[in-house]
Amino acid sequence: MTSKQIQTELKANGRGLEERLAALEAKLATIEERLPEDRVSLVVFSGDLDRVLAAFVIATGAAALGQNVSIFFTFWGLNALKKKRVLSGKRLMEKMMALMSPSGSRSLPVSKMNFFGVGAKMLRTMMREKNVSSLEDLMQMARDLGVRIVACEMSRDVMGIKDEELIGGLECGGVASFLADALKSRATLFI
Amino acid sequence: MTSKQIQTELKANGRGLEERLAALEAKLATIEERLPEDRVSLVVFSGDLDRVLAAFVIATGAAALGQNVSIFFTFWGLNALKKKRVLSGKRLMEKMMALMSPSGSRSLPVSKMNFFGVGAKMLRTMMREKNVSSLEDLMQMARDLGVRIVACEMSRDVMGIKDEELIGGLECGGVASFLADALKSRATLFI
Amino acid sequence: MTSKQIQTELKANGRGLEERLAALEAKLATIEERLPEDRVSLVVFSGDLDRVLAAFVIATGAAALGQNVSIFFTFWGLNALKKKRVLSGKRLMEKMMALMSPSGSRSLPVSKMNFFGVGAKMLRTMMREKNVSSLEDLMQMARDLGVRIVACEMSRDVMGIKDEELIGGLECGGVASFLADALKSRATLFI
Repeated sequence: MTSKQIQTELKANGRGLEERLAALEAKLATIEERLPEDRVSLVVFSGDLDRVLAAFVIATGAAALGQNVSIFFTFWGLNALKKKRVLSGKRLMEKMMALMSPSGSRSLPVSKMNFFGVGAKMLRTMMREKNVSSLEDLMQMARDLGVRIVACEMSRDVMGIKDEELIGGLECGGVASFLADALKSRATLFI
Repeated sequence: MTSKQIQTELKANGRGLEERLAALEAKLATIEERLPEDRVSLVVFSGDLDRVLAAFVIATGAAALGQNVSIFFTFWGLNALKKKRVLSGKRLMEKMMALMSPSGSRSLPVSKMNFFGVGAKMLRTMMREKNVSSLEDLMQMARDLGVRIVACEMSRDVMGIKDEELIGGLECGGVASFLADALKSRATLFI
Repeated sequence: MTSKQIQTELKANGRGLEERLAALEAKLATIEERLPEDRVSLVVFSGDLDRVLAAFVIATGAAALGQNVSIFFTFWGLNALKKKRVLSGKRLMEKMMALMSPSGSRSLPVSKMNFFGVGAKMLRTMMREKNVSSLEDLMQMARDLGVRIVACEMSRDVMGIKDEELIGGLECGGVASFLADALKSRATLFI
């Protein structure tokens, strides 16, 4: 073997492996992009106290475990984000909808055994007796833990819900905004 | 170093790396199979207009983002896929079930404030006023975007729903068909 | 080229590839940890017969396909895990809650057309006529297939549900226990 042959062989040898390595590195990069991130995305469609509570228990739990959490509130779920009822400047049906909907988290009904609000009061009392955080405490905790709270624009628009009716610190977004998070998530739930 | 020694060393060197490369390539192939695909799978269990609307907004949004979307309609969700009511040839309880269920997407109730259909009419009117697509438009859009619409065989069988009661272009499938999609999906929701 | 030069080059050549290989191997190990496992996690929040049935159909289906399945029962979902009603030793509101809740899977209502239990009876009869497994059969099948059934500790505590009210063979756990499974799952559903 001449010195020249050796060098050629060294290069050929290296090049074959080199090319396969480069292919693997490229593939790994695309795989990494397709992996789920440390992320949990929830849709809160329901405006029932018990379901919204479940959503915030899961959201704060996941955030405490280091996950990026976002909750997308749509339809009746928006009632949990209200702070007061505004009627002026609304169309007739928007007014009716507002009058028949709870004006904030404190007046959400429960999904079962509500009996005109008795069920919700009872559930809140039972939770307090067992030292379980109230919905309002959980919502504050979620914000402190960096949970993103997004109000669905389309639902807001359809129901005519105004900015001044909603609590502060919310993001607004459409379904694309929900999907952007959901498609990269480890877990997605519709509540 | 003799020429022979060099060749041996070259080969040994190459073989070690070669083997590790081959192992990596094999591992990558199995990893790729375990990655979620660009896929979203929904179960629509509810037959409420508002929930079915939410399902189709998410489904069309995901399909527009390039995801393979399938919706598995089960239990009350099948009401959204009906086009008319058929009673002849049904058992007593199947007839009762048919008579108490909506006979198509246009007669679906809303989950809250339905008041014998007033709520559903109100929601449809409010959506039209804000130029939001109707459920029927969204369903057509979903089909145009290639969303797979699957009717749950077991539910159909239990409720005695006949072929001629359902809209065309549906697939029928069982839970295994839903799971086949769901297990490869980026996001799964039960609505 | 001297023998010394050749050996140096051989080593340098090998080392470059070697380092890139080691980096790839390390990356692959972290990627494998971030991949979803063969796992499905469900939350059963609802205590409606039809929804609990859907949960067990999906759970047994997934288990039959070789997935590790766990179901986390919370709020009204706990009613499906009861075997009898106990009132002694409960606070007033816990007693009221117990009296207004079903005392076991056999008395769960359906979410629509319940009419004081007629709907649930009708659904069970229709299922039997079509040889579809009953809820109790599906629950037994789930256990036989190794589905983990977890009762939510917080809900139990709030509602004052006692050990002797629940069927045997359950695990108890909090939201962290649900999330531990859910974050590694291929599919997650809130039912």
